[in-house]
Formats: sequence, C-alpha cells, structure tokens
Amino acid sequence: MSRDVLNTDLYEVNMALAYLGEGMTAPATFSLFVRDLPADRGFLVAAGLERVIDYLERFHVTAAHLAVLSDALGRPALELRNLRFTGDVWAVPEGRVVYAGEPLLEVTAPLPQAQFVETFLLNQVTYATALTSKAARCVLAAAGKPVVDFGLRRTHGVEAGLQAARAGAIVGFAGTSNVAAAARYGLPAVGTMAHSFVESFADERTAFRAFVRRSTGPAILLVDTYDTERGVWIAADVLRTVARERQLGVRLDSGDIDVLSRRARRILNDAGVPTARIVANGSLDEYAVERLVAVGAPVDLFAVGTKVGTSADAPYLDSAYKLVEYDGHPVMKRSTGKATLPGPKQVFRRAGAVDLIACRDEFGPPGAEPLLEPAMLQGRRISPAEPPQDVVAAAHRHFRADLAGLSEPVRRIRRPETMTPELTQSLRQLTTDLDKRLERH
Amino acid sequence: MSRDVLNTDLYEVNMALAYLGEGMTAPATFSLFVRDLPADRGFLVAAGLERVIDYLERFHVTAAHLAVLSDALGRPALELRNLRFTGDVWAVPEGRVVYAGEPLLEVTAPLPQAQFVETFLLNQVTYATALTSKAARCVLAAAGKPVVDFGLRRTHGVEAGLQAARAGAIVGFAGTSNVAAAARYGLPAVGTMAHSFVESFADERTAFRAFVRRSTGPAILLVDTYDTERGVWIAADVLRTVARERQLGVRLDSGDIDVLSRRARRILNDAGVPTARIVANGSLDEYAVERLVAVGAPVDLFAVGTKVGTSADAPYLDSAYKLVEYDGHPVMKRSTGKATLPGPKQVFRRAGAVDLIACRDEFGPPGAEPLLEPAMLQGRRISPAEPPQDVVAAAHRHFRADLAGLSEPVRRIRRPETMTPELTQSLRQLTTDLDKRLERH
Repeated sequence: MSRDVLNTDLYEVNMALAYLGEGMTAPATFSLFVRDLPADRGFLVAAGLERVIDYLERFHVTAAHLAVLSDALGRPALELRNLRFTGDVWAVPEGRVVYAGEPLLEVTAPLPQAQFVETFLLNQVTYATALTSKAARCVLAAAGKPVVDFGLRRTHGVEAGLQAARAGAIVGFAGTSNVAAAARYGLPAVGTMAHSFVESFADERTAFRAFVRRSTGPAILLVDTYDTERGVWIAADVLRTVARERQLGVRLDSGDIDVLSRRARRILNDAGVPTARIVANGSLDEYAVERLVAVGAPVDLFAVGTKVGTSADAPYLDSAYKLVEYDGHPVMKRSTGKATLPGPKQVFRRAGAVDLIACRDEFGPPGAEPLLEPAMLQGRRISPAEPPQDVVAAAHRHFRADLAGLSEPVRRIRRPETMTPELTQSLRQLTTDLDKRLERH
Repeated sequence: MSRDVLNTDLYEVNMALAYLGEGMTAPATFSLFVRDLPADRGFLVAAGLERVIDYLERFHVTAAHLAVLSDALGRPALELRNLRFTGDVWAVPEGRVVYAGEPLLEVTAPLPQAQFVETFLLNQVTYATALTSKAARCVLAAAGKPVVDFGLRRTHGVEAGLQAARAGAIVGFAGTSNVAAAARYGLPAVGTMAHSFVESFADERTAFRAFVRRSTGPAILLVDTYDTERGVWIAADVLRTVARERQLGVRLDSGDIDVLSRRARRILNDAGVPTARIVANGSLDEYAVERLVAVGAPVDLFAVGTKVGTSADAPYLDSAYKLVEYDGHPVMKRSTGKATLPGPKQVFRRAGAVDLIACRDEFGPPGAEPLLEPAMLQGRRISPAEPPQDVVAAAHRHFRADLAGLSEPVRRIRRPETMTPELTQSLRQLTTDLDKRLERH
C-alpha cells in the first residue's frame, strides 16, 4: 500500500507521462536543498528522511491510483501503471546540522520516477527540517534547562503535531504533551491541568486537591486561573500534603513570567515546598526562553507550544528539488537568484571549518567527514527499518554531536552568523564550464 | 474506529480521569473562539467543522487506546474504557465570516468528554480557519482574477496540504495542483511543468514541443528556465502549433512579474498567440497579488503556494477552548488579558452592522441572523454526512454571501479595520455579576 502516491502535484504526473512518452527513462539525479536560511537561523537540523524512505519503498501506482490520476488529467494514465521507485537515495542523516546550499538528499532514479516523487519529498523534508531547526533553537536558548513540547493544539493538523513532537525528541526535549507522539517515539508524556479544571470546582483549593488525589504522575498545579500569587499560596498548601515520591510543581501560563516565577519561587520556599518546580508556558519560543534565562528567572522547565510547533517566525524553508544530472550529463538552472550547482554531490565537513561541497565521486580532504550517506539503493533501504523511537534516538545522537561542533556565533538566537559552504575546485570548474555552454546555447 | 483519539494532550486525559473519579459528569459547555485577530486580518473565515463532527461522531476509547493511555499516564485508565461523545455541538457553519471573540463552536457534553476532545478540536479549527482566512485574502487581492493553490510542497505535511486546497475551494480558488485534494473535493487539478522538465531536453523548444505533444490539458509552458523573454518567444512559436481547442499559456515563476508579464503579453500578441494566458507564481501571497493587480500587470491567473499554504505571516490563531458553564452554572476566567465570557452563547449578525454576542437562549434583534447552528445533538450529527465536495460547496456559498456583506475597510489587505462584536444587555449583566462573585470569592 502506498496511500501517499496521490499526495503530489499534477505537474509531476504530467511530466512523468511526457518522459515515458518520449522514452526518457535514463537515470536522473535530483538534489534537495535549502537555498537560503530564514532570518535568525544560523543552521538547520536535517529531518524528514525516515518518512521519505518509507514512502519511496512503498511507492506503487495501483489501479485505484490510476483511476484518480486519469480523472485529474482528463485522460487515461495507463503508462504509470505499477510504477515503483527503483532508484538510489543519498542523504544527510536526520539530526545533523546543515547549511544553505548543501544537499539534504539526492535521488538518482529513472527520470519519470525521480520526478513523480518531488512534491512528497519536498513536503516532508521542508516542514520537518523547519520544525526541527526551530526546536533546536529552544534547546540552545534554555541553556541546559529542560524543554517540553505543548504544540499539538495549534500545529497544522495532527500529522504536523506528531512531527513537532518528533522534532523536539531529535533535539533533546524532555517530553511532549502529545499522547500519540509519546507512544510512537517513546517519549515521556507530560501535562498538568487546564484553567477549565480549576473553574469546574467550587474553588482553586478544591480543584487542586481533587487533582492530586485523582492523578498519579507529577503534581503540577496551574496557578493563574484567578490571581497568580494567591494561586501559588493555595497550591503550596495542597502540595505540602502530597506523597513525598511525587514530583511537585506549579505552572504559569500568563502574565510576566519573570516577575511571577520569582514570586512563586519565594512563596513555594516560604511555604515549605522548596522542591516544587516552576513550569512556564504561554507563547514561549526561543526568544522568550532566552530572555527568561538571561534575567535569571527561576523557571525549572519551559513548555513551548504554538510558536515552536508552527515555527511561527519561519514556517517554511526556501527548499528546492532540482535536476542536477540526466543520463550522465550534468544539468543546471541559470534563472537569476535561483541558479543551481550541477551534478550529484557530496558535502565534506571539516573540523571547526566550513563545509566543502564536492562532486559526488571526489575524495574529501584528509579528516573530513562526508555528510551524505546512501540511504536507499535500487529502491530498497540500506538498513532495515527501525522502530520510530530508535530512529529518533539515532537522530538525537547526531544532533548532539554536531551541536558540540557549532561555534557561538552560529548558535546565537538573534542575528546568528551562518556558514557558507565552499565549493571544491572540481565543482567550480564543472559549474563554470556548464554555465558557458548554456550561455552560448 | 477513531484513530484520532490519541491525538490529544496528556492533560485532557488526566482531567477526564479526575472528573470521573470525582463523579463530575454533569454537562459542561466549552466555547471555542479566537481571542484576537493577527495583524492584517480584518476577519476570519470559519473552517474545520466537518472534520470535528466526524471525529466526535466516531470518538470511542477502545481497549487498544486504553493501553496507550495507561502507558502515557503510568497507571491504568480503565475508567475511560468505551468513552464516547454523547454531547451537543453548536457551530458557525464553515465558510462564514467571523470576528475575534465570537464562538466558532460550542460543545455541551458530560464534563469528561467535553474536556477530552479539546486538543483535537482546537487543532483542527485553528489551522483550518487560519488557512481559509489567508486564502480568502488572496481572492480579495486578485479582484476577480482566478487564483489556484500550488501549496502542497511546503505545507506542514500532507494533511495540511489537503486542508490548504480545501481552504482555497471554500473561498473560490479555481483549482489546486494537489491531486489528492482535487479528487477529494472535486476541484480542477492544475499544473504545468517544472524547470527540470525543460532541462531534461536538449533545449527549450524541444522540451515545449514534447510537452504539448505528450500532455492533454492546458498547454502552459514554463518560460523562465534560462532567459524569460527568449523563453516566451520560443513558447509562442510552439503554442502556435497547438490544437485550437486547448487552452494556451506561459508560466512565470521568478523575477519581476510586473515587468515580465507585460513583456510576455506583448511577445505573445506579436507572435500571433493572443489567447495564450499568463500564469504567475513564485512567492505570491495576497500582498504580492494586490500589488500586481494595482499596477495592472497582465497576469491572467495567480498561483499561490507556500506563503498561503502555511499562512506564513500568521501561521496560527490565538484560539481558545474555554469552559463557560458547568452543571447549569456559568463560569468565566479572569486572568489578565485572557478573560472569557460566561455561559453558552449565540451570535447575531445584523445587516451592515456589528455582530451581537448574546446568551444562547436570547432572542435576537428583528432581522438578525443567528450564526451558530446545532451541528450535533446527543452525539449524532444533525444532518447526514455529505461527500467532501458538497460540504465544501456549501461552505463556498456561505463565504460568498458573507463576503458580499463585508465593507471595504474590513476587506482591505493592509491594515484592515475589524468589527468588534457588541454584547447584549443580558450577557453584560451575567458577566458583571459573575465577575463580582469571583472578586468576593
């Protein structure tokens, strides 16, 4: 089954048919990369690959798909019957840090196949990478304090909600509120109570008591339904009665978190529950978290939601999926501002230095690490599929290792620097030669 | 089956269990509304209801769900076994224009049920309404010229891609590139070719010829792969040879669309293909479309993609799902800046005037139209489920009717005015009384 086959743009279908009609089924290589980073992004974190591999492996145009495709086209599309993906994919593993212009993945397959899958690949890699890069910035901003994902209620659908939680897991969030995501990715499910809970009872104290009585996990009480300071006092009273082995805490969801967290800390300490932690949320993103950390607000855990789950300041990336070789001949696009680098490529990462984009078959400089690895060969994944949580754990290890190598200016939340990859002599030569040929053309 | 049951925040589960434990199963009413409009939004277009009704009707906590829920909670959740939704939903029909503070829907159900479904309802209504409101602005900006959706490649997943196409259909887009969405919502599937198509051939002319030979629908040629003006000349040559009954056109994907569309128009006319239409895309949103229309660029069709499919300037809405009544008693939240209006409500729309938010059981002023209608009663939808395309067609009729009633300042793309609904005397009284009671409390 490959229910995602129809999640494509009509033009992919049109082009695939034209290629088949013209007998143009030689191997083509397409390169998926991000042209420019959004403002305030020093780096990206690659993501979305697992879903792509899964899609390509299952890709199969069935009779049922054909009926829909024919309808959309207004003519039979029989030539596509039983189309499968039989190509190769080289890709940067999920969780790795990447920069603008570097291929995140490259597909080499018979031209109609490589073209047909464009839309789905762009869709998945673009938004997964956008969300993961945003989440990474939250971890940096929190400077060692735990961060959790509360995004599901305002992500763009439940598929995006899962991906937002997965993004958090890749960069080391401590948990997610999303039950489906927690189960799928083996994450701690976290959550407290809503204002409506407090309002459903005669008063705050009754609500808090009922909550600690009826719930098991951490006893985190939401204290800002009526008056925050009063709420903290009442919470402290109730938390004093809670069994020692449970985690205790209060949650602040509105107002000036810096001021309120300091008052809450003092109240909790004075009231004899110094182990109670302070959870903050409410429109938090990396900018707000960084400010709170900078001023020393005594927040113990940051819950980020909407702004991170939608990557609100940069909800998309300027991604592209460009033909770079057809039938053994390198190809490039010359449109102003949208020029591409020809040929299959490799990216070499040198310790502490800028990356080097090379032709695929070049040797890298001594000690340099190639970022692109084969992920599929002849339509089959290189390594057996792993459970989602193992995939995420591996991505997290990649992220941690790469993060350790990032300089402060690139990690910066505001106005970060970014790294511009260099091109090898061979790639520059290939680009110049091809450009001249197209110029004359 | 109700696979969406687990697409929820853990706290909903915690709260539902606490309510069940406390025997708090009396009816509760929650109101879903948007607190404030994003910048540059004069109005919203309600959307997401159909999916919500579908979810609520199928909602059923099965043994398989229980296992996952228990895992997430760290304790058995047997009390939730076989939980279903047995409540009522009043809602503003999809496609209707709404303002900040007006309920988009209200749920009345036994408290644990009404609480459990919060996350899913917020998720679906928030992003569907955000995307539809964005799409509506494109239609306004295009001032009568057709608009189509090219968003799928960068929406937040394929679920969001479907919703983006659906949003376009609600507000009257002329088609979508998304094959799955076209099939689902009965929309024209539209699409041309990619730069890679042109690059796969020896030259542009060969590529264009192959395309018109192998494709059936409109012959729209992408002309900016190498040099746009030269591309238009070559396209014109090829289009002159195309059968009379096919639609002809060129697509501009980069550069200064105003300048290029004027040159393209002249070339196409001079070259004897005056019926060829000019399609423009490439980072278009309502702002860009409005500018192009204002300067009279001869673009015949606008294809909007990423910025509209992600609602890039406002990727989320400040939505809330708030308890307004429990067990017959009105409830409100007093937190600074996040206060809510108590009790179940109705919204009355008066011709050419501001809306009036009322208590649910109030009579409206003469001639005023109630916006909220019963959508579910006792867990069952009021009207039988309809095919997706009929639901969208009905929403489109609502949108067109409401749009006709919008004043110019509210329709405006930049710095629009917005309407602040008034409250009826009864609702104001209820709010004041309850506020005083909570103050003393």
